[in-house]
Amino acid sequence: MPPVADGETAPYEPVRWIDGATVLLDQTLLPHTVVERRIEDLDDGIEAIRSMRVRGAPAIGVAAAYVLARSIAQSGVDGLDTRAERLAAARPTAVNLRWAVERVQRAVEGVTPAEAAGAALVEARAIHEEQRAADASMAQAGVALLPPSLSEVITHCNTGPLATAGGLGTALGVVIAGHHAGRIGGVLVDETRPRLQGARLTSWELTQHGVPHHIIADGAAASLVASRGVAAAFVGADRIAANGDTANKVGTLGLALACRYRGVPFYVVAPLSTIDIETPSGDVIEVEERAEDEVLAVDGVRLAAAGASALNPAFDVTPAELVTAIVTERGVLRAPFAASIAAALAKRPERA
Amino acid sequence: MPPVADGETAPYEPVRWIDGATVLLDQTLLPHTVVERRIEDLDDGIEAIRSMRVRGAPAIGVAAAYVLARSIAQSGVDGLDTRAERLAAARPTAVNLRWAVERVQRAVEGVTPAEAAGAALVEARAIHEEQRAADASMAQAGVALLPPSLSEVITHCNTGPLATAGGLGTALGVVIAGHHAGRIGGVLVDETRPRLQGARLTSWELTQHGVPHHIIADGAAASLVASRGVAAAFVGADRIAANGDTANKVGTLGLALACRYRGVPFYVVAPLSTIDIETPSGDVIEVEERAEDEVLAVDGVRLAAAGASALNPAFDVTPAELVTAIVTERGVLRAPFAASIAAALAKRPERA
Repeated sequence: MPPVADGETAPYEPVRWIDGATVLLDQTLLPHTVVERRIEDLDDGIEAIRSMRVRGAPAIGVAAAYVLARSIAQSGVDGLDTRAERLAAARPTAVNLRWAVERVQRAVEGVTPAEAAGAALVEARAIHEEQRAADASMAQAGVALLPPSLSEVITHCNTGPLATAGGLGTALGVVIAGHHAGRIGGVLVDETRPRLQGARLTSWELTQHGVPHHIIADGAAASLVASRGVAAAFVGADRIAANGDTANKVGTLGLALACRYRGVPFYVVAPLSTIDIETPSGDVIEVEERAEDEVLAVDGVRLAAAGASALNPAFDVTPAELVTAIVTERGVLRAPFAASIAAALAKRPERA
Repeated sequence: MPPVADGETAPYEPVRWIDGATVLLDQTLLPHTVVERRIEDLDDGIEAIRSMRVRGAPAIGVAAAYVLARSIAQSGVDGLDTRAERLAAARPTAVNLRWAVERVQRAVEGVTPAEAAGAALVEARAIHEEQRAADASMAQAGVALLPPSLSEVITHCNTGPLATAGGLGTALGVVIAGHHAGRIGGVLVDETRPRLQGARLTSWELTQHGVPHHIIADGAAASLVASRGVAAAFVGADRIAANGDTANKVGTLGLALACRYRGVPFYVVAPLSTIDIETPSGDVIEVEERAEDEVLAVDGVRLAAAGASALNPAFDVTPAELVTAIVTERGVLRAPFAASIAAALAKRPERA
């Protein structure tokens, strides 16, 4: 088993806490402009999450925890539930967002108003630290799944440090660590329409980490996984149901089907916090519909004729039967997922 | 079986013959600008084909026939072989281009120099008319495959009147005729990265024909075919092997896999001239690699960071086992395709 440096981190920080406020690397401006943005208050934080200046389920959770901590420092705990609910509703599908908000809410229960801001910040920092540790564990577990020879792998969307605000990310953390461990020689990066997180963010991150890669149109994946002999696919997850059905960025299902057809292992890499045991299966996951302009235009350049309309589901659900394994910070879960997920959650330490 | 108007045509004409010259609807400017361009001579025609002002294999053939007829009217038949060869080489992979040029060449053999221009134009008009008839036959055969209730279908790339210069096109001809016949209520249009023929051309054509539709990211197809209860997929083909394996615009294979997973019929609509009996299977079809800038930028807007690289296969091959049926101008071919294709080609009338 090749070594993965424990706590290895990125040469950039997507979410930071500086001088009492959250500072975000504005992901809407990458890869052309690298600019940090200071989040001054709750509304600012909601806007940043909604407009995807911070994105990726774990990173949203970390950012939201800091944003709520600052809101408590600014406005105390009166009406906190209302504020927390507004923050938690900024992105409907991201389970980590609500989970992180609720952790900060619970952290200030039973402390004095004077202690609330401090308790909230301690909890936000704990969430951030736990993510760093989880990223390192996932990378280690994922690299162990790779063949010992140098392979090419494929990934979708962005699941790197930008997406978790932790160490190396989830799926992309495995890829980066796998490259450093001498097992991954190249990466196919789905451009990930409509928002192009692959072309814009994943390619940028892989370049920062020195990992050779090619961007491809999403539709090219099905033929390239076969013609290039891709060894495995690694993707993240926005929400995993109790039966292993996985909601992730739209286009993930298509990649899973291509992998199944070609006999390529398809791995989901996600922290246990992504698993929503209250969701029995993918059928009941509400899929966020985003603005049609994301499909109809790119950077203000209109692609389709005026008057054309689009459908823009942000996510799709990959049935558990297409998932080879789920790589978590507490090991690799395999089918039957209902049982392996329940067992992993039972062992999960109770969080505050 | 609902009626499909015989010889139904589009409310615009991608290739026309006006006052002794070819007039092309410039497809490089669609959908934002609708401009016709008069092709004055052979060099003009070669430029128009090379720069994709006219595109779609059948439309290129029709346009080239008219261009050669005008060249004969202007310059006679001296040195015709050299001129014909230059024209045929404008897009080396387009089978219909060489076939149409050779038909016009043969049409002027054995006629007097004074009769040559007239004979060439008669042949060009015949090629155009045959395409109209083929389009109408494919539309009729394809519509018969639709359920009698109002359905939604999905398509990829552009296969409409713009692509054939005939009647209603190939796959999109079925869709348009199916709407007029009351069987298709809506269409999902894959945007078709990287060149966006779906968002730019197919959506524009459907609007001209009054067919309700939504553009979608290619990666959204796999989930939407299930969630929207799509009744069928209709796609075109660039080349069909003797065993039914189908080369078509990249992304077609992914759509075929989604349809197979969801039990949705997947139809290829193409004239018999698309079948290459010399190609035993898709394994031996060489896939054109296009410039990586098509993936890395849109309309001059750079998507990925400077220095990023891309892979850009223009086509993929959908194995025959994923194809429900091939709709041709001489009926619907079904598995086993090796036998049904051989039988259809045996009945194909010999062309001049």
